Amino acid sequence: MTLFTGLSAFPLTPTDDEGQPKPELLQHFLEQIVTAGADSIGLLGSTGGYAYLTPEARKRTLRAAVECAAGRTPLIVGVGALTTDLAEDLARDAREAGADGLLLAPMSYQPLTDEEVFRHFEAVAAAGGLPLCIYNNPGTTKFTFSPDLIARLAELPNVIAVKMPLAADGDYAGEMRRLRAMTPEDFAIGYSGDWGAKHALLAGGACWYSVVAGLLPEPALALTRAAQAGNAAEAERIDHAFAPLWALFREFGSFRVMFAIAESLGFGPITPPRPILALEPAYRERVELALRPLLDKNLWSQRV
Amino acid sequence: MTLFTGLSAFPLTPTDDEGQPKPELLQHFLEQIVTAGADSIGLLGSTGGYAYLTPEARKRTLRAAVECAAGRTPLIVGVGALTTDLAEDLARDAREAGADGLLLAPMSYQPLTDEEVFRHFEAVAAAGGLPLCIYNNPGTTKFTFSPDLIARLAELPNVIAVKMPLAADGDYAGEMRRLRAMTPEDFAIGYSGDWGAKHALLAGGACWYSVVAGLLPEPALALTRAAQAGNAAEAERIDHAFAPLWALFREFGSFRVMFAIAESLGFGPITPPRPILALEPAYRERVELALRPLLDKNLWSQRV
Repeated sequence: MTLFTGLSAFPLTPTDDEGQPKPELLQHFLEQIVTAGADSIGLLGSTGGYAYLTPEARKRTLRAAVECAAGRTPLIVGVGALTTDLAEDLARDAREAGADGLLLAPMSYQPLTDEEVFRHFEAVAAAGGLPLCIYNNPGTTKFTFSPDLIARLAELPNVIAVKMPLAADGDYAGEMRRLRAMTPEDFAIGYSGDWGAKHALLAGGACWYSVVAGLLPEPALALTRAAQAGNAAEAERIDHAFAPLWALFREFGSFRVMFAIAESLGFGPITPPRPILALEPAYRERVELALRPLLDKNLWSQRV
Repeated sequence: MTLFTGLSAFPLTPTDDEGQPKPELLQHFLEQIVTAGADSIGLLGSTGGYAYLTPEARKRTLRAAVECAAGRTPLIVGVGALTTDLAEDLARDAREAGADGLLLAPMSYQPLTDEEVFRHFEAVAAAGGLPLCIYNNPGTTKFTFSPDLIARLAELPNVIAVKMPLAADGDYAGEMRRLRAMTPEDFAIGYSGDWGAKHALLAGGACWYSVVAGLLPEPALALTRAAQAGNAAEAERIDHAFAPLWALFREFGSFRVMFAIAESLGFGPITPPRPILALEPAYRERVELALRPLLDKNLWSQRV
């Protein structure tokens, strides 16, 4: 199994009032992920708030993660930045710090051309020298990858995977068939968008890049393993336990909801970086209710 | 005349290979703007590449600008940032350094809610304590202001102007009528999008937030004054001289074209921050041709 397959769990990066990372709490989240047996950690992804942290805070966060996870669970680290210079610097730092792979989103301010994104990836992949996954997340980066651009990037050294957003038409199998025909045989096509994970995995997606697994790795892993085994009924049953949470993710954005989950689980106070606001207290009860079917293993684990 | 009226000229922020500002060249651009008699300088706007500069580089850039422009031409400075903490810090710094006003764009990574943008503006306007213009630029920030949100922001202390994007339907008069009915009487509604400036100013727009005036302030000022005087024929004639340049702005984005103009004018080598790429050499000839009707004052100045 290669790096960008299975369940990749994306932890929050908890910070204090000054925006400084809180390494102990991060390591607690990572310990949960490692213990559950997730296939990788997606550190400093969108859920990890990489876009809101200074380069120095990102580097410190990575070191705290390596300290906890090295040799236990592969560590993938987000190195996206608005400038190529900074993304290159973060990619080099990731290798030096001991990360296993990179995740690169084409963050943008001025809308980017395909050629600009290609050259950006080429430069950062070369600077990092680690296996790299294309972070295709138009909802945050405002850049939409064409299949042609993904195919072109897949020819670059080190670029061996893509993290796709939810398939707009729900046809994961068709989308993967088209992308596979254009990319090298070992190029790994995985998906984010937690509420589509069951479909994506059952359709043969290589990886679930999972927000919820950052805090609830056990049920997320159970869903992953059921779907990887082709057990649609079991995957359906576990996915059903997640349904109230998926509804919250869709309504408020998973980033905001994850902070509320962390508080519900007793890790608070933990708030998103401003300008992002925490969920209003009125919604906290919905979060508690949504967590209930997931916190009791008997409610989602394999029935024998 | 208040701060956010007339012609606001947006200079590039030239940087060296390490992304460090080159203060002498910036001051040369500013000197041109001051000498031409523009009504304000829009420092570190989108054209000034604020999104691509470190906070330290932005602060140094501001000081170089104050050194040149203070007491001569009002200085408006962009303080947008992905976090409220950083935008507050930049707003405080702007006041300390001697800026006259602030321009605040709701940069985003996670898509922002109206309430998040409101609280962000409230915090930054309070921290800066300077007159502030709402930077409404969905093409770069990916946030769309509703008229209701603009009206709500216009009630905040210090928030006294908005910089609107091109009116999608071209109906500047109608858009301003609707916004004026919802905002305080002295709230200044101005426009960016250089190729719509003639229409916006003739329709009564308070300000042209001008990209091209960062390098070609003289013809931009002539267009502004003609339109402000209600001289539609003269405004039309000058706008016509800009037409080939507007075509390039629309095709490649004004940010990329401005660097090519700067090179054509002999300020090179000067390149955009990666991942943004300079125009291919093949297009440089079109830039030269587009500049011709603007560099000879006889071709655009008032015919008597």
